Amino acid sequence: GCGERMGVPTPKQFCPILGRPLISYTLQALERVCWIKDIVVAVTGENMEVMKSIIQKYQHKRVSLVEAGVTRHRSIFSGLKALAEDQLNCKLSKPEIVIIHDAVRPFVEEDILLKVVTAAKEHGCSDYDLEFGTECLQLALKYCGTKAKLVEGSPDLWKVTYKRDLYAAESIIKERISQEICVVTDTEEDNKHVSHLLEEVLKSELNHVKVTSEALCHASRDLQQIILDQCYNFVCVNVMTSDFQETQKLLSMLEESNLSFLYPVVVISVHFLDFKLVPPSQKMENLMLIREFAKEVKKRNIWLCGLLISYPQDEQKRQESLRQGAIVIASLIKERNSGLIGQLLIA
Amino acid sequence: GCGERMGVPTPKQFCPILGRPLISYTLQALERVCWIKDIVVAVTGENMEVMKSIIQKYQHKRVSLVEAGVTRHRSIFSGLKALAEDQLNCKLSKPEIVIIHDAVRPFVEEDILLKVVTAAKEHGCSDYDLEFGTECLQLALKYCGTKAKLVEGSPDLWKVTYKRDLYAAESIIKERISQEICVVTDTEEDNKHVSHLLEEVLKSELNHVKVTSEALCHASRDLQQIILDQCYNFVCVNVMTSDFQETQKLLSMLEESNLSFLYPVVVISVHFLDFKLVPPSQKMENLMLIREFAKEVKKRNIWLCGLLISYPQDEQKRQESLRQGAIVIASLIKERNSGLIGQLLIA
Repeated sequence: GCGERMGVPTPKQFCPILGRPLISYTLQALERVCWIKDIVVAVTGENMEVMKSIIQKYQHKRVSLVEAGVTRHRSIFSGLKALAEDQLNCKLSKPEIVIIHDAVRPFVEEDILLKVVTAAKEHGCSDYDLEFGTECLQLALKYCGTKAKLVEGSPDLWKVTYKRDLYAAESIIKERISQEICVVTDTEEDNKHVSHLLEEVLKSELNHVKVTSEALCHASRDLQQIILDQCYNFVCVNVMTSDFQETQKLLSMLEESNLSFLYPVVVISVHFLDFKLVPPSQKMENLMLIREFAKEVKKRNIWLCGLLISYPQDEQKRQESLRQGAIVIASLIKERNSGLIGQLLIA
Repeated sequence: GCGERMGVPTPKQFCPILGRPLISYTLQALERVCWIKDIVVAVTGENMEVMKSIIQKYQHKRVSLVEAGVTRHRSIFSGLKALAEDQLNCKLSKPEIVIIHDAVRPFVEEDILLKVVTAAKEHGCSDYDLEFGTECLQLALKYCGTKAKLVEGSPDLWKVTYKRDLYAAESIIKERISQEICVVTDTEEDNKHVSHLLEEVLKSELNHVKVTSEALCHASRDLQQIILDQCYNFVCVNVMTSDFQETQKLLSMLEESNLSFLYPVVVISVHFLDFKLVPPSQKMENLMLIREFAKEVKKRNIWLCGLLISYPQDEQKRQESLRQGAIVIASLIKERNSGLIGQLLIA
């Protein structure tokens, strides 16, 4: 079993990162660890309702709330009491080991938690740890007669303290969800060729990013799997003649999947056009509809943009505009800028 | 006088932030302090040429280079030797006080440096400082017989160590140069009205940002002053009939000013159109020219985007599209995303 607690109820843990409060990321990190049975969060009375709504909105499981004390240590005590109490109607099981964790350390990894738990089971205490650890180690000895052990953490475990830490946390999260891009296409031959070219350029322009491609029209079980595997970035290639049919299909799938409830999912609706044959303005008239779609799916945390890529006959020029398209796609995905939702970009 | 030195030559100090290496930001922070006479940078042989080109490109003054030693302390010694030597042809003056500073602490402020220098002049040393300071304090005592004093730093002084620190530094720099937006207009009455409305919406949407407005057509001495005062964000309102005349005028002024050599200057060329009277596609054809202008001024580190704002008769709708325009403007300025250079956005 495991309990999770936080100290002083500064509003830092409620600061939004990509629209979601920091505490929700921390809870998510703990929930990923299957052997953590219960998570107890200590919240001040004034923040109780906010915290309840966060738990509901982001569908956190295994989380119980207790009222925080006036000090960090009193809050820890409230949390422990909730875990220790033998109440008949209490859903909490009495834990063997309790981890006390900071709400503002969202990037805690399972291996560190495992080290902590293992150390708790195996070790007594060293004087070294007591001298160089935090005051918690001394408290453990004084009040519980338990010797504490210091476990080396990773740099990722750092605490969100200053505004710059919020910036850093946001960048780290954006980077983590930008590791994979799925290029979605229908199966018309021409289009497949175009989307294949785009896929190749994306691969060569975006090192460190996994670029996969999936067909939309079949039973699309593979695409379902990609969604289940939590890919948060989709480039949907539409054929010249149709408008948003493919994009709309993809959007429906994403809406059904509920993928976007934790992170904003970026969808870029890509359209190709030979600007020499058809002036882009003509095509644009239609493509401006993207604003309406974008407004609709934004409610579900799906961030939709359009991208019109010039597709000239000349191969070198075509390569150049594809490259430009890849740069725009990379920007939209990496920066995940909500102010650009519904925009139609041109490459 | 003052010397500036760095330790181990990891490539961190050369990491680009908005295209400029971290070390250049640190040098800039020291150069801002008028009483620092000389800055000595210790660089390893392999990085000497890179460092020279950085100094040249970003026009750093008062900077001399010495070859770094194999350890941090040997590098410090090389720097001190360069400052102490009585060479006839040496441009360095013998300093009274030397500050040793980390190249990866770009946000050092004058007041901290002043505290350090004052303490160096006034104090002997306390045992407290020796116990809790870094090894440098002990070294000072051991080798120079000088007692050291510990001066409290600010959180801004933190060291760029991990990748997350680079992210944070970039966000801090972006925030610092996004504190002021200048709305530039010509003087035609209609347009002045429109730009005034936009200015008002910008003010109400962007708290914490100073929104000023300047006329372009007069002798424009005020605009020159804004540029001299280092405003890095311009919203240039063009009248409906003309295309890019105002924007082009502004771009020439910016190019002449050399404002953009340290930070990318964002220019947003704003155009208004009643989408009901004229379909946006018609206007777009012309506005697509922005891509060519953008390509040209990008060479000078000026990042140009276009923004077409719908301007319906209905006042409520107009307010809504102005608000949407302000959101796009805020995004472009705050995120300063190079992938979007030359794009024509729509609000």
